[in-house]
Amino acid sequence: MMLSDKVLENLKNSSWIRAMFEEGNKLKAIYGADKVYDFSIGNPEVEPPEEVFDALTEIAEDQTPGTHRYMPNAGYPFVKEAISKKLSNKYGTDVSADNICMVCGAAAGLNVVLKSILNPGEEVIIFAPYFAEYKFYIGNGGGEPVVVETDEDFNIDTEAFKKAVTPKTKAVLINSPNNPTGVIYSEEQLRELADAIGEMEEKFGTDIFLLSDEPYNEIVYEDRELPVVFNLFDKAIVVNSYSKSLALPGERIGYIAVSPEIPDCATLMAAIIFNNRTLGFVNAPAISQRLVAKAVDASVDSGIYKERRDLLYNGLTELGFECRKPEGAFYLFVRSPVENELEFVKTAQKYNILVVPGRGFGRSGFFRMSFCIDIETIRRSLPAFRELAKEYFS
Amino acid sequence: MMLSDKVLENLKNSSWIRAMFEEGNKLKAIYGADKVYDFSIGNPEVEPPEEVFDALTEIAEDQTPGTHRYMPNAGYPFVKEAISKKLSNKYGTDVSADNICMVCGAAAGLNVVLKSILNPGEEVIIFAPYFAEYKFYIGNGGGEPVVVETDEDFNIDTEAFKKAVTPKTKAVLINSPNNPTGVIYSEEQLRELADAIGEMEEKFGTDIFLLSDEPYNEIVYEDRELPVVFNLFDKAIVVNSYSKSLALPGERIGYIAVSPEIPDCATLMAAIIFNNRTLGFVNAPAISQRLVAKAVDASVDSGIYKERRDLLYNGLTELGFECRKPEGAFYLFVRSPVENELEFVKTAQKYNILVVPGRGFGRSGFFRMSFCIDIETIRRSLPAFRELAKEYFS
Repeated sequence: MMLSDKVLENLKNSSWIRAMFEEGNKLKAIYGADKVYDFSIGNPEVEPPEEVFDALTEIAEDQTPGTHRYMPNAGYPFVKEAISKKLSNKYGTDVSADNICMVCGAAAGLNVVLKSILNPGEEVIIFAPYFAEYKFYIGNGGGEPVVVETDEDFNIDTEAFKKAVTPKTKAVLINSPNNPTGVIYSEEQLRELADAIGEMEEKFGTDIFLLSDEPYNEIVYEDRELPVVFNLFDKAIVVNSYSKSLALPGERIGYIAVSPEIPDCATLMAAIIFNNRTLGFVNAPAISQRLVAKAVDASVDSGIYKERRDLLYNGLTELGFECRKPEGAFYLFVRSPVENELEFVKTAQKYNILVVPGRGFGRSGFFRMSFCIDIETIRRSLPAFRELAKEYFS
Repeated sequence: MMLSDKVLENLKNSSWIRAMFEEGNKLKAIYGADKVYDFSIGNPEVEPPEEVFDALTEIAEDQTPGTHRYMPNAGYPFVKEAISKKLSNKYGTDVSADNICMVCGAAAGLNVVLKSILNPGEEVIIFAPYFAEYKFYIGNGGGEPVVVETDEDFNIDTEAFKKAVTPKTKAVLINSPNNPTGVIYSEEQLRELADAIGEMEEKFGTDIFLLSDEPYNEIVYEDRELPVVFNLFDKAIVVNSYSKSLALPGERIGYIAVSPEIPDCATLMAAIIFNNRTLGFVNAPAISQRLVAKAVDASVDSGIYKERRDLLYNGLTELGFECRKPEGAFYLFVRSPVENELEFVKTAQKYNILVVPGRGFGRSGFFRMSFCIDIETIRRSLPAFRELAKEYFS
């Protein structure tokens, strides 16, 4: 075979999100962009906050020699200091700049962390429904994903979790606020998970990392407090990105933050920095690093997303659709009115409505809608949903 | 073990370049920056050309909505078009925009390509001396590096190459202008290599890709013409970066260009784009993409590097050091006056001179000097070299 067999196999099962995104582009070409209701992709429609544009102007004016050269692979010390300080002020953590590595976004951060901790065949537990790319990241690190179902409210089922742990379990990967469900795990739930991890570590004599993927940490509604994983787990690694909080997904910027309580965390940091280099990231883009340092206290207004959530959630539930109200992030994970959600997704396309099948996230019978889109599109979509609903509820 | 055993092992054999770079920082803290002659790292001291700064100002002023959002994983179509046109005008190639994928620099590009073509245990041939990171990139893709020695002028030894090919050989990775030797392979040499590859493909009934890593393609002296690999090899993949040509190493921007002659190159492109996404790069940074599109015809003045090369090359050879004169890139690969170059490197440190041992590039008995540094530092280093030379030549 001329190419990697594994990659060819993955290509065949390619991303549902991307497939729907491309279907949307086709429909838009036929019917016009304003007649297509594309809820497929999480590409923030909101613009970066003013602080980001001001920062970019400052950077463009700065002709200090060396501004665009290599810096240490972990990132500029002043950028890591700014983030360390923010974490300390906002969450009361004591993660020093030495325990932070700047990365090219959360996808990069997760690949780097997994490659640093996994030996071949070691297992990483993820909770369904999950962000589909996790399985690829774990595979890239040489590990095996182990899927544990959440309960019907999409909360962690601690008993199911404990049953899934084996002597090969190396990490548990959580995502809160969650893509695709919008769930935020409560402090109580996370404490229960931490206890379960401790119990399993004792049982098997192993060490299990808690990886927390937090790109939606600033997209939170009704002022929900996000529990701080550093204060709840003794081997916590946080991966974050500014793709959503500063609406900069194209600029590929985020960070890894490692709990100082991890034994020999200096070696873990060395491994992370080594992999950041040799996996080919080398360093997070210099301009993006400067941007987030200058705009470290800024974030997009989550009220903009709340308005969209309320309009869509209320509109759909009034029509008879069932859905847990998202507490964060910008997705609705809706129960399909027919068991086979592929059938529903196809029917929706007749009304120029694009949503992503739940099986793309490891849970059939549901579909995901991304509401980080123009509010007028959401408004215009509601009559189309009304027609669609008539096919199922009457 | 808490971390990846493989990574821990690699950490122990960590980069010589980085080790010397850190030694340099220590010496600078003791003796003052102007008293230390640091030839360890290839971090361009030259600033980006004016076109890049103008482009950045334009980008900062542009408040068109969507400028910092996700774009297709392969990059902006208009950026790929600009590069396709440049390749066509400058090299007479017919690589269309569809056969280009924007990546986060050449290190990213090589990781993405290798992951796309390699099955577990397949082999990639590299020529010593080589850029040390290649071995890690090949390992990340699941392959095995096979090292072939070059001749004493650092040219490709085609007979040695043919002996190293096996049924598992999937690719040959070349780097011209070369790091660490500064060699540019002639058209004749590359034609010989292409013939040898064809012969071996026939012998084993296999397909062998030619991967060409060309980040130094604009750093060329005496107007040497660079042979165009697309015109010489039938399965050529070029990986390039703007780290050197636009002096933007911190901004992580480059591209993969795939020969349209590769059978089913559309599937290869799909695999490349898939891996660009799932390895965690997602896309090359948006600002960096716009920068290179706007400055596509610009490049740093290689005359600046020529001046440094001449000063250092003449200075060292007059003192008795032996070295092939670099035709491109910004490194001298110098024969150590004692067989064990580690001994020489240590002695040089006594004179505050930092160079990298040749074994870091797979060839002992030599040392590498990077001359992309301030010309005054080079000038000031010559008396120190004179003293150092006295220990060996008299």
